[in-house]
Amino acid sequence: MPDSAPTYAGDAELDRLLAAADSALDAAAVRDLLAGVLAAPEPEDPEAWMELVAERRSPALAAQLGALKRDLAAAWDDGLGAGTDHGARLAELRAELERRGLQGFLVPRSDEHQGEYVPARAQRLAWLTGFTGSAGAALVLAEQAAVFVDGRYTLQVRQEVDTTLFTPVHLAEQSPADWIAENLKAGAKLAYDPWLHSESQVKGLRKAAEKAGGHLVPCEGNPLDAIWRGQPAAPLAPVRPHDLAYAGQPAAEKRAQIGAEIKTRGAEAVVLTLPDSIAWLLNVRGGDVTHTPFALSFAILRADGSTTWFIDERKLTAATRQHLGNAVAVEPPEAFGPALEALGQAAAKVTLDPASAPDWAFERLRSSGAKLVPGADPCLLPKARKNQTEIAGTRAAHLRDGAAVTRFLAWLTAEAPARAGGDPVTEIEAAERLAALRRGDAAFRDLSFDTISGAGPNGAIVHYRVDAESNRALGAGELYLVDSGAQYPDGTTDVTRTLAIGEPTEEMRDRFTRVLKGHIAIATARFPKGTTGSQLDTLARRPLWEAGLDFDHGTGHGVGSYLSVHEGPQRISKAPNPVPLEPGMIVSNEPGYYKEGAYGIRIENLVTVVPLSAPPESERETLGFETLTLAPIDRSLIEASLLDAAEIAWLDAYHARVRSALTPELDPDTAAWLAAATAPLAGEQ
Amino acid sequence: MPDSAPTYAGDAELDRLLAAADSALDAAAVRDLLAGVLAAPEPEDPEAWMELVAERRSPALAAQLGALKRDLAAAWDDGLGAGTDHGARLAELRAELERRGLQGFLVPRSDEHQGEYVPARAQRLAWLTGFTGSAGAALVLAEQAAVFVDGRYTLQVRQEVDTTLFTPVHLAEQSPADWIAENLKAGAKLAYDPWLHSESQVKGLRKAAEKAGGHLVPCEGNPLDAIWRGQPAAPLAPVRPHDLAYAGQPAAEKRAQIGAEIKTRGAEAVVLTLPDSIAWLLNVRGGDVTHTPFALSFAILRADGSTTWFIDERKLTAATRQHLGNAVAVEPPEAFGPALEALGQAAAKVTLDPASAPDWAFERLRSSGAKLVPGADPCLLPKARKNQTEIAGTRAAHLRDGAAVTRFLAWLTAEAPARAGGDPVTEIEAAERLAALRRGDAAFRDLSFDTISGAGPNGAIVHYRVDAESNRALGAGELYLVDSGAQYPDGTTDVTRTLAIGEPTEEMRDRFTRVLKGHIAIATARFPKGTTGSQLDTLARRPLWEAGLDFDHGTGHGVGSYLSVHEGPQRISKAPNPVPLEPGMIVSNEPGYYKEGAYGIRIENLVTVVPLSAPPESERETLGFETLTLAPIDRSLIEASLLDAAEIAWLDAYHARVRSALTPELDPDTAAWLAAATAPLAGEQ
Repeated sequence: MPDSAPTYAGDAELDRLLAAADSALDAAAVRDLLAGVLAAPEPEDPEAWMELVAERRSPALAAQLGALKRDLAAAWDDGLGAGTDHGARLAELRAELERRGLQGFLVPRSDEHQGEYVPARAQRLAWLTGFTGSAGAALVLAEQAAVFVDGRYTLQVRQEVDTTLFTPVHLAEQSPADWIAENLKAGAKLAYDPWLHSESQVKGLRKAAEKAGGHLVPCEGNPLDAIWRGQPAAPLAPVRPHDLAYAGQPAAEKRAQIGAEIKTRGAEAVVLTLPDSIAWLLNVRGGDVTHTPFALSFAILRADGSTTWFIDERKLTAATRQHLGNAVAVEPPEAFGPALEALGQAAAKVTLDPASAPDWAFERLRSSGAKLVPGADPCLLPKARKNQTEIAGTRAAHLRDGAAVTRFLAWLTAEAPARAGGDPVTEIEAAERLAALRRGDAAFRDLSFDTISGAGPNGAIVHYRVDAESNRALGAGELYLVDSGAQYPDGTTDVTRTLAIGEPTEEMRDRFTRVLKGHIAIATARFPKGTTGSQLDTLARRPLWEAGLDFDHGTGHGVGSYLSVHEGPQRISKAPNPVPLEPGMIVSNEPGYYKEGAYGIRIENLVTVVPLSAPPESERETLGFETLTLAPIDRSLIEASLLDAAEIAWLDAYHARVRSALTPELDPDTAAWLAAATAPLAGEQ
Repeated sequence: MPDSAPTYAGDAELDRLLAAADSALDAAAVRDLLAGVLAAPEPEDPEAWMELVAERRSPALAAQLGALKRDLAAAWDDGLGAGTDHGARLAELRAELERRGLQGFLVPRSDEHQGEYVPARAQRLAWLTGFTGSAGAALVLAEQAAVFVDGRYTLQVRQEVDTTLFTPVHLAEQSPADWIAENLKAGAKLAYDPWLHSESQVKGLRKAAEKAGGHLVPCEGNPLDAIWRGQPAAPLAPVRPHDLAYAGQPAAEKRAQIGAEIKTRGAEAVVLTLPDSIAWLLNVRGGDVTHTPFALSFAILRADGSTTWFIDERKLTAATRQHLGNAVAVEPPEAFGPALEALGQAAAKVTLDPASAPDWAFERLRSSGAKLVPGADPCLLPKARKNQTEIAGTRAAHLRDGAAVTRFLAWLTAEAPARAGGDPVTEIEAAERLAALRRGDAAFRDLSFDTISGAGPNGAIVHYRVDAESNRALGAGELYLVDSGAQYPDGTTDVTRTLAIGEPTEEMRDRFTRVLKGHIAIATARFPKGTTGSQLDTLARRPLWEAGLDFDHGTGHGVGSYLSVHEGPQRISKAPNPVPLEPGMIVSNEPGYYKEGAYGIRIENLVTVVPLSAPPESERETLGFETLTLAPIDRSLIEASLLDAAEIAWLDAYHARVRSALTPELDPDTAAWLAAATAPLAGEQ
C-alpha cells in the first residue's frame, strides 16, 4: 500500500507499458485521449477511462496512466478564464465578425444536440459573457449586445455579467426574436452557427431579422471558436453497453421497430441527433456530460434497421464494439456531413426532427437533394414508454434510493433542530450528506441533477443551486426544501421533500396541505386512454386556486430510464401538449408553493402510468398512476382537517407502503424513526 | 279587415304606388330586391323588408308589396332540385373541369365568410352531392369523388348521397388532405375556389397535393357556379342599427379601438371578413343567414378608425345609413377587390386572419404589393369581452328566456307522462311548443340554432335534428334532452335540460348526477387570471372518468351578444386553446353523457366570467363564473348521495335564485310547479 501516489515516469516508459499491454495507443495518443477524458465530467470510478487504453492493464500501467492523468488534470483548464476581461473578448468577436462581413452573431447556450447539459467546449455563452446559468443566449451587434435569461437567472446575470457590455434581458419580457426585430439595422447580416440552432428556432429568428429589414445568415465555422484560444477538447468518456437486464429490449429489435416506424412515414432513413435517443436505440450509455449518461454523437438509421453511428471511436470500449455487432457501422463525426450528402444524392426521403435537429443537417440534406419528411424523433415515444424490465428496474432503484433518502431525513430531523442554535446544519452540508448516503449504494453512478437544497427564503427559488455565498443555515421555524435524484443502471430518480425545522406556522401547514392535496389529486387521478398531461395539470393546482394561490412551474416532467431526468414527449403542464399519457411512461408529480423571501414547498414523487381495473359498466379504457418514489412526507406539515377521507386514506396507504418496503433496508434506529414518520393520520384527530 | 290576401295588380300599378311613396325603386328593382329577400331566411316580421323599398308606405303599397312577395315566394326555388339526378350534375362538373384543364375540384360547405350558416346560393355541396349536413366537403377527381363528413353525419350521408357517385369518408379516419395525398395523380391539377377557403386551409391542401406529386391551383370563377342553373341570388335582408342601449359602446369608439390595436401590430389597415366581427364593430344587425343576425359583407378599417364597408347598399335601411355617419364609407361588394389592390399599390402593411380570411384576399393583397401582417381578427377579443351593458342585457334576456323554458318544462312534466300511453308528446311537438312559448316574448327575433329535441336513443345523438322520419314519442321511462336557444336584441341564449319522462332507472340517475357534478365543478371553479378554458375542461369530466365514462364533445363554447351562438376565441375544451378567460366573456357549461341506442344527458347553462372576491392572503387575481341561465334542473334525476355538501349547497342556491327570479314572470300554476321543482335537496335525505 503506497503512502503516496506514483509519479509519472515519462512517455518512453508509458510507451513500453502500453506495448506490453497490447494497447493500440502510444503515449502521445493517450495524451490526446486524456484531453477529451478531462473535458468530460469525472465519473464515480476515476479509472474508468483506462478501459479505452487497454482491456487488460498491468498494475504498473494503471499507475502510470493514473499519474499522467493527475498531471494533466492539474494543468487542465476549462478555458473560461475566470476573472477575464470580457470586454476584450467581445471586441475580438466583433473584429472577427467584421472580417467576415457580418453585423451580428447569436451565441446560444446550446450545443449541437440541444441538450440540458453541455460539455466544456460548448460553454461559449459563459466564455463570452461570464454568465454560467443553464439556459440563455447572447446577441452581439456592432454597437449593442444583450444577454437573455429566464426568471431563474435575473439576479445571477447581474452578478456575473458586465452590464456595460451586455444588456440583460428577461426572456419573458422580450425574446431574442423581438429584440432582433427592434434592434437589427436594415440591411444588416445577422449570423448564426447552424450547428447550434434547430430548424424551428432558425425559422423564428429569420422572420425577426426580415421584419427588421435585415438578413439571417448561417456561418461556416463558429466565429467565436475561431478566437477562443484554449477551448477544451470534445469530451471522451467511455461508452459501455447498457445491459439487456436493464434495457429489456434488444437493440436489434429497437432498430427494426424504428425502421418500421419511419417506413410508415414514407421515409427511407432517419437522422438522429439527440444523444439520449441514440443511447436508448443502441442500448449504450456514456458520460460526456454531467448527470446524464449518454455519449454525444449522431446516427442515421435506415428503414431496414441498419444504422451508422457517427462517434469518436476512441470512446468505445471493447465490450461496446462487440455489443454493436455488424448492423451498426461506426464512423467518425467528420463522416456525418458526407453521409447526409450521400442521402441527398440518392434523393432519399429522410425524416428528422425540426424541434431538435440542427439547421445544419436540414440544409445539408436539402441542398444535396434529399426529400425531407419533417417529424418528431421516432425514438421519443418508444423510449418514453418503459417496458416491464425498465419498470421493474426503476422500482428496484427507487427502493434503494428511498432508503438513502429516508436515512437522510431521519438524520436531518434529529440533527437540524438540535443544532439550530449553535452549529447549524447548512444547505451544503445537507446536500453533501444526502449525496454521501446515496453513494453508499454500489450501483450509484451519478446524481441525476445538481441537488436543490434550500432553507427558508432559498426554498422559494424554484431552481436554487447553493454555493458558498448563498449557503444558509437550516434555522428553527424554517422550512427546508430538498430536490434531488440519482442515476443507477436500473433507473433514474428525482424526489423532493419539504421539512419543517422545528415548529412550522399555521400558514406553512395550510400551504403544505394544499400542495399535498394537489399531489394526491394527480396520484389518484383516473382518466381515459388518450388523456394528455395538460388535461391533468389543473387537478394539481385546484386546492391552491381555491385560496387565490398558484405555482409558476409545470406539475410534472418525463423521466428517463438511466437517462435524462427531464425527457419528453409527455409532461404534466398547463402548456398545451398533444401527447397522451401511455402505460409505462414515467412522469414527476411535483406541485409546489413559493412565498418569495420566506419559504418554498414542493412535494415530488415519480409516478408511472398504469392501466386501472375497470369499474362495472365502464366504457373507456381507464389509466392512472403508480407512485414509484418511496420516502415519507413530513406529517408535521399536514393540517389534517383540510384533507377529506379519501385523501387521508391515500396518505396512510402510501406511508404504509413506504414503511413496509423500506424497513428491511434500514438499521433499527432509522426503521423506528420511519415507523413514527409514517404513522397513520386516520383516527388521530 | 280583408278576408283574403290582396292579389298583385301588376308592375304598372306598383310603379305608381312606389313613385307616390318617394321610393328610389321601380317595380323591376323591387323584383330584383325580392330575389335576394327570398334567398334570406324569413324573419319574424315578414314585412320587415319593405323598409328597404320606402321609409313610409301607404296601405295600398304595403298590400301590393306583400302580394308580389307572395307570388314570387310561391315560385321561389332553393335551386337544389330535390330528387335530382346527382350523377348528371357530377358529370357536368367534370366536363366543366376538363374544359378548364383541371383534374380535380374541391367543394367545401363553407361560404366566403367561413361561417356556421351559409345562404342558399352557397349550398354547393348540397347541390352537387345531396348532402345537407352543416359541415363537410366533397372532392371530385376525374374518376373518383368523395364526400367528407364528421361523426354527426355518418348515417345521414348514406341516406342522402348516392354512394356509387361519392365515397363517404369519415373525417376522423381520413382528412381531405390525406385523401388527396393518396388519390391525386402525379402531375394532376387540383383546383379550389380561393373565396371559399382560408389561407390556413389552402396551406394544408397544397402540402397534400404536392405530396402526391400534383398541384393545387386556385380557379377564377367557381366552376360549379358556372353550371348551377337556378343558383339563388345573394341574400338581401334588412340591416338595422344595433341600439347603443344593447351594444353599450358607440361604434366610433370601437373603430378607434381596433384602429389603435392594428397600429400596435405595425399595420395600417385590417381586412375584416367575418360578418359577426363587422356587425359588432359597426353596431348593426342583419338577417342574411338563419339563426345569426348579421349581414354578409367585408370591411377594411384603417389605423385612424375610418372604415369602408363592402355591402350591397340595398340592404341598408335609412336608419342604418344615418347611423353609419361619415366615417364609414359604403361600397358595393365588387369594389372589395380593387380596394385590396389599392392597399397593395400603396405598399400598405395590412393585417388579416389566416384562420378565416379567404385565400383570395391574401393573394390579391400579396400580388399587388401589400405587406402582410397575419394575425387574428382584432375584433374577436373585444367582441368576446362583453361590456356591462351587454352583460345586463344578457341577464334580462335570460330572465325572459328562462321563464319561457320554465313554462315549457312545467307543461312537459305534466303532459308527457300523462299522454305517454295514448297520444304521446313527440319530439317535434315539444320543440314547436318551446318555440311558441319563446315567440310569446315581443323581443324574440329567432331561434339561435335548430332545437335539438331528442327522446330516448335520439338524445344520445349529440347534434340530433328531428325530422318527420326520426320523430319519436316521449315514452314513459325514457329521458328527453332538449337543447335550444333564442336571439333577442339584448342577448343570445342557449340552454339544455334533460328530463325523466316518468320513472328513471338507477343508472340514469347515477349518470345524470355525475354530469351534474361536472357542471357544478365548472360553475364553482375559482382560477387565477390567465387560465384558459382548456385548463378547466377536466373539472367537468372528472366525475365521469371516475366511473370509466366520458363525453365526446367540448365542455363549453363562447356565445355572442345578439350574434352567433358559437363564437370564439375562448372555449372550454380538452383541445388546446391559448386564450385566457377574461371577465365579460360568455361561455356555455355543458357536460354530458351519451349511451348509444339508449339515452343522452346534457346539462347546459351559459356562464359569464367574473372577478371573484379574494380570499385573505390571496396572491393571484381570481376569476370565476356567474351563471346566466335560469331554469330548473330535474331533481328526479339527481342521486343526492353522490353529491357532497358543497355541491348540494350550489344546487339549492341556484334553484332558489331561479325561483325568486322567475316567479314574478309566471302564472300561479307554473309558479307553483317551479316552487316544487326547485325545492332544496338539503335536509331532504
